[in-house]
Amino acid sequence: MAAATLVVNGDVAALKAPSAGRYAAVYSEVQNSRLDHPLPLPSVLKNRFKVVDGPPSSAAGNPDEIAKLFPCVFGQPSANLVPGDSSDNSGQKLKIGVVLSGGQAPGGHNVISGIFDYLQDRCKGSTLYGFRGGPAGIMKCKYVVLTPEYIYPYRNQGGFDMIASGRDKIETPEQFKLAQETAIKLDLDGLVVIGGDDSNTNACLLAENFRSANLKTKVIGCPKTIDGDLKCKEVPTSFGFDTACKIYAEMIGNVMIDARSTGKYYHFVRLMGRAASHITLECALQTHPNITLIGEEVAAKKETLKNVTDYIADVICKRAELGYNYGVILIPEGLIDFIPEVQQLISELNEILAHETVDEAGVWKKKLTSQSAQLFELLPPAIQEQLMLERDPHGNVQVAKIETEKMLIQMVETELEVRKQGSGYKGQFKGQSHFFGYEGRCGLPSNFDATYCYALGYGAGALLQSGKTGLISSVGNLAAPVAEWTVSGTALTSLMDVERRHGKFKPVIKKAMVELDGAPFKKFVSMREEWALKNRYLNPGPIQFVGPTSDKLNHTLLLELGA
Amino acid sequence: MAAATLVVNGDVAALKAPSAGRYAAVYSEVQNSRLDHPLPLPSVLKNRFKVVDGPPSSAAGNPDEIAKLFPCVFGQPSANLVPGDSSDNSGQKLKIGVVLSGGQAPGGHNVISGIFDYLQDRCKGSTLYGFRGGPAGIMKCKYVVLTPEYIYPYRNQGGFDMIASGRDKIETPEQFKLAQETAIKLDLDGLVVIGGDDSNTNACLLAENFRSANLKTKVIGCPKTIDGDLKCKEVPTSFGFDTACKIYAEMIGNVMIDARSTGKYYHFVRLMGRAASHITLECALQTHPNITLIGEEVAAKKETLKNVTDYIADVICKRAELGYNYGVILIPEGLIDFIPEVQQLISELNEILAHETVDEAGVWKKKLTSQSAQLFELLPPAIQEQLMLERDPHGNVQVAKIETEKMLIQMVETELEVRKQGSGYKGQFKGQSHFFGYEGRCGLPSNFDATYCYALGYGAGALLQSGKTGLISSVGNLAAPVAEWTVSGTALTSLMDVERRHGKFKPVIKKAMVELDGAPFKKFVSMREEWALKNRYLNPGPIQFVGPTSDKLNHTLLLELGA
Repeated sequence: MAAATLVVNGDVAALKAPSAGRYAAVYSEVQNSRLDHPLPLPSVLKNRFKVVDGPPSSAAGNPDEIAKLFPCVFGQPSANLVPGDSSDNSGQKLKIGVVLSGGQAPGGHNVISGIFDYLQDRCKGSTLYGFRGGPAGIMKCKYVVLTPEYIYPYRNQGGFDMIASGRDKIETPEQFKLAQETAIKLDLDGLVVIGGDDSNTNACLLAENFRSANLKTKVIGCPKTIDGDLKCKEVPTSFGFDTACKIYAEMIGNVMIDARSTGKYYHFVRLMGRAASHITLECALQTHPNITLIGEEVAAKKETLKNVTDYIADVICKRAELGYNYGVILIPEGLIDFIPEVQQLISELNEILAHETVDEAGVWKKKLTSQSAQLFELLPPAIQEQLMLERDPHGNVQVAKIETEKMLIQMVETELEVRKQGSGYKGQFKGQSHFFGYEGRCGLPSNFDATYCYALGYGAGALLQSGKTGLISSVGNLAAPVAEWTVSGTALTSLMDVERRHGKFKPVIKKAMVELDGAPFKKFVSMREEWALKNRYLNPGPIQFVGPTSDKLNHTLLLELGA
Repeated sequence: MAAATLVVNGDVAALKAPSAGRYAAVYSEVQNSRLDHPLPLPSVLKNRFKVVDGPPSSAAGNPDEIAKLFPCVFGQPSANLVPGDSSDNSGQKLKIGVVLSGGQAPGGHNVISGIFDYLQDRCKGSTLYGFRGGPAGIMKCKYVVLTPEYIYPYRNQGGFDMIASGRDKIETPEQFKLAQETAIKLDLDGLVVIGGDDSNTNACLLAENFRSANLKTKVIGCPKTIDGDLKCKEVPTSFGFDTACKIYAEMIGNVMIDARSTGKYYHFVRLMGRAASHITLECALQTHPNITLIGEEVAAKKETLKNVTDYIADVICKRAELGYNYGVILIPEGLIDFIPEVQQLISELNEILAHETVDEAGVWKKKLTSQSAQLFELLPPAIQEQLMLERDPHGNVQVAKIETEKMLIQMVETELEVRKQGSGYKGQFKGQSHFFGYEGRCGLPSNFDATYCYALGYGAGALLQSGKTGLISSVGNLAAPVAEWTVSGTALTSLMDVERRHGKFKPVIKKAMVELDGAPFKKFVSMREEWALKNRYLNPGPIQFVGPTSDKLNHTLLLELGA
């Protein structure tokens, strides 16, 4: 075990006396108070239960290809926990590994607590290994044996610092071999992979690989991502989404009150969440901004950057006529990924700049198609520069680094100047830019995320004890009281489709995008005219952990559940 | 009254039925729950009290000049409220105006509620006028008559949107005349000015002016600013500081957990507060970042930008040796104002660019002194550009717009590259920039700010009823339970010094800077080595409004009070 890694993750635990119960030296009062926050379990997990299989499953798309890619685990039924007696495996001691994969999301520590408590409660004498630093920890067999003393201080705490996370993948034959070696070395009965869509695809590949190699190690996934884009009928939401949105909404709500008090700024707020716009949509439902851009809608309507700019300018002009020269605008981080012409420009730039040197005279620009050249000229100089200079190690444009909110401020400003000359606009425009991202990923989990994660982990333990593999832990009926939540496992292959890359089929869990005919988006559409011109700002305030407001679910989840 | 202004502020009130008690349509659950949060008063304000004058006062500096500038109000004693019977003015109906001046700070609405409730409780039949849009509202006689229905929905709410604020000053003879006309027209007995150092200086000039013109209108100030730089012995803190710091600390705490979980980013966090570094210091005491830059210390040590860069790089190198390639760094917004060589460069740029056109060849640069030219070349290109292009209407560099956190990331990166080649550094460095500002100014006030502001307003009412003028409402003994808080008025002239501008003396309330021999800074200094190399991150979490953590005072206040 490398010293560096040990130290990185040992910070908190090392300072925490096992028996102290309180950690005044390393925790704030609120952090300390969260340690004792009770974690209720769904009734089915509190009593004796058995696992009942549903009908065989298929795939989200191209079932034949998925079946070929996963010959051992394809088609598995969902496994539903129901009250009853199960004599199987009772009293069995298990060796289980757990790994955090990908970006942080509030609640990850509670998933681990849930697995651990399941083993303590139902399989006394079991061992839980925490792989350090993500999937690389599996391959390098870097782990810590999780004990009550080690785990307790992380209960209901944000972050992934208990065992840290990583972005490595296990996908090549060599990597699978390393994973197998660890599974054999530690005599693992099971492995829980806590991650997003990619990590759960990986988890399924690992389940397939272990089974095909006749290893006893089962693999169960858990749905993690603040982006909210890993969900399906059986998995109503990914954990972390609730907390992150509430943190962003607190900030947005404050900025709104500031906008109204000052009366002179348009706040352009870019929000984390690149692939899908769920975070932006949820924050809009919580706070009622004047303008909200939803990437999926922009893509569906095949809008250009000019269309988007014009839409914002239109609202600003109408508001100016009403005497409002201020407002709040929400922008999903991935907005420009949704604009076809921008995608085209970026792909041309990637191609050209891989082969050409950028000359001062701009000769390289002549290689752009005329549409892309036109768009490039439309962009503010700072953005042109970002497109050309901020490139990843493969030489590609780093779209995530483009400050879309600043780009839009400049483009809207230019557009409004034009309209001013045409006397179509008489207001004042001042833009302020914000990016809310990192501050939402590691907050203290909301009561919902704390409880949901604990159930996901506890359920994952139950699935492993039942000998299941290739499933994702699924907790449902979330609009009901916790006691009535359902617990099951859903075949990971049932979430999958294939993508063709380099002539080969590659399995992927399709990202759940904002559905334009879904209840959350429709609710937003029904309100956006009113929010644009009237000021219906809501300030959700800081997350409260006790009191009547502390157990409120997010709008997206409630609307999708029809609650 | 202009329609625009009416609409700006009418949003909330118009939607609120006076008798509804709850405002589900316009308020979130937390906002609603705050309406009923009880506001305890200091005992002295709950019972019968009389006003006892202290000894005559002087000035913070140059008392002779201040005496000349304020012949009517200079030297006034402080007015202390003590239990007892005062027969003066009882039953008198008053006409009082109130104005919000300058930037937002959480709690402003509670000051107004305090004044209003004082009048309701002690001077039945009185009228409270809210001047709209700051001091301009006084000059233009734009106001709203504040009623219980109008005020109630803003109780314990953030922002200044009840009557909005503004940055106009009342300082020319014409402006004083307009203010007098309003005072006479509305038959004002008193005026409460809620503002920062400039606004309270203005309040004192107005008190002087009204008295010299034999107007009956008295003027009382209230200490407002999130920056925390308006304070003295009698005024232990300005309102808004507590809430804003707690909001920033929540975000910083989250970013810290993210840094530790990810293990690969240095987060450079710039915090609002340009003139003084109180916010940055308080946030450091709340969260224990690895590096905290305090402008006042940088200035006292006459540090250069290179010194600051080297200090950051030194800590990063030491941390890399310990295996930490991540961290959190706090930077006060006004950092570069504290660096003499940067001030020199900016003043040269202001001078040169006012007269020269900026030629591509850079001939204009030759006008810089060699020290400034050297510094300019040291700056990253983006910052060079900001210095030259982002200029205010007077052509001056807009220091507040300079993204110091990004500048430092680039400078540190360059320095680390150099050290890498000299093999003095073997780590990985990735910077992430943040600016926390607007999201802290308009948050829901903490319990402390809510109660403190209510007492400030209630006390201001008492001072006006007692016929006092030219005082600032002062609530003290804040480390004790609210019942034991003291209430008084302090002569505004006693906070003043003079500055010489254009050959004339100008009175100013000296900004309270971070004192390098004060308890908060000394506490920080005693810890910073440990915080730099070990990771002692604290995550204060979101402000809680109920429960044991909800009434905690900020560290700066507690340390300054010796509590």
